[in-house]
Amino acid sequence: MRSALLKLDGKFAFSVTCTTRPRRPGEVEGRDYYFVTLPQFLKLKKEGKLLEWAKVHGNYYGTPVRSVTEVLGKGRIPVMTIDVKGARSVRRLFPDAVTVFLLPPDLKTLVRRLRGRGEPPENVALRLNTAKAELRAATAFDYLVINDRLPETVREVAAIAELETLRTRRNLDKVRAFSAELAGKD
Amino acid sequence: MRSALLKLDGKFAFSVTCTTRPRRPGEVEGRDYYFVTLPQFLKLKKEGKLLEWAKVHGNYYGTPVRSVTEVLGKGRIPVMTIDVKGARSVRRLFPDAVTVFLLPPDLKTLVRRLRGRGEPPENVALRLNTAKAELRAATAFDYLVINDRLPETVREVAAIAELETLRTRRNLDKVRAFSAELAGKD
Repeated sequence: MRSALLKLDGKFAFSVTCTTRPRRPGEVEGRDYYFVTLPQFLKLKKEGKLLEWAKVHGNYYGTPVRSVTEVLGKGRIPVMTIDVKGARSVRRLFPDAVTVFLLPPDLKTLVRRLRGRGEPPENVALRLNTAKAELRAATAFDYLVINDRLPETVREVAAIAELETLRTRRNLDKVRAFSAELAGKD
Repeated sequence: MRSALLKLDGKFAFSVTCTTRPRRPGEVEGRDYYFVTLPQFLKLKKEGKLLEWAKVHGNYYGTPVRSVTEVLGKGRIPVMTIDVKGARSVRRLFPDAVTVFLLPPDLKTLVRRLRGRGEPPENVALRLNTAKAELRAATAFDYLVINDRLPETVREVAAIAELETLRTRRNLDKVRAFSAELAGKD
């Protein structure tokens, strides 16, 4: 989904995650992840430079605060693809963040996708167990998108981001401005 | 906006409001409003047949419960264009209702629109006063849409309705179904 959303227009930008997980074929350093060593990761974490971090299946993942503020500084909407623990951390720091839970259309598809990643069978079983725990946290997310066909998923996530800008609580300045205009008429 | 939204597709339907206000040129009975006498209106109100009602500038307006349940029965999204008091009543009965506050782009446009309706000048002043009070209630609405160009407004309201169907709290059945599928795998 990353590159598909990025291509939409200049509105979104992914904050790049750093990870200690080995690079998979096709993944590009600095685009898909920053691949770091365990000591490097722990140093970033200790120095408070990670907005959120999680240990998943023995590997560490973290979102550098800087990768998010850089995106915001460019006036773009930062998009993060993170797990449920990460979402919790982000929401704590940015209560205004919008969270979207991506649900596979069905179990068969999830298993097929996990296998398609080239994971060994024991990892597939492990990830299915994780999915169980993650589903329990799904209710804390704002939106639920069925990740069936990718173009549709991207369209929906982009539309969510766009529509969320119309939330009244994000536009109180406009209400105030109009009120001031009306008051000035007296 | 009514007819423009209606034309979008079969997804929406307006619940027709009844009113004691005199019919304006071009308005059609049963499409724009049900035009009723004051005794007829008070009877509907007394019999609990109105989902919401309000007295605005000396006229009564009310949404018949039946006009909403009819739309829901057809599997459509009922759309109501009501004032802030009406929205409060609807939200009380349907906590799941989505409320959108339409804000004119600026004061000049609002005045021009009110005059364009053929209202006498004293009514325009009265309505501007109402606008002041309504703005104070705007923060209780879920969304704020600047009603500048009509096609854009319609597009945004329709998109809000569509995206609101993706709210997690409206899709807990899907989370449960997937959880059950995962549990069945053990």
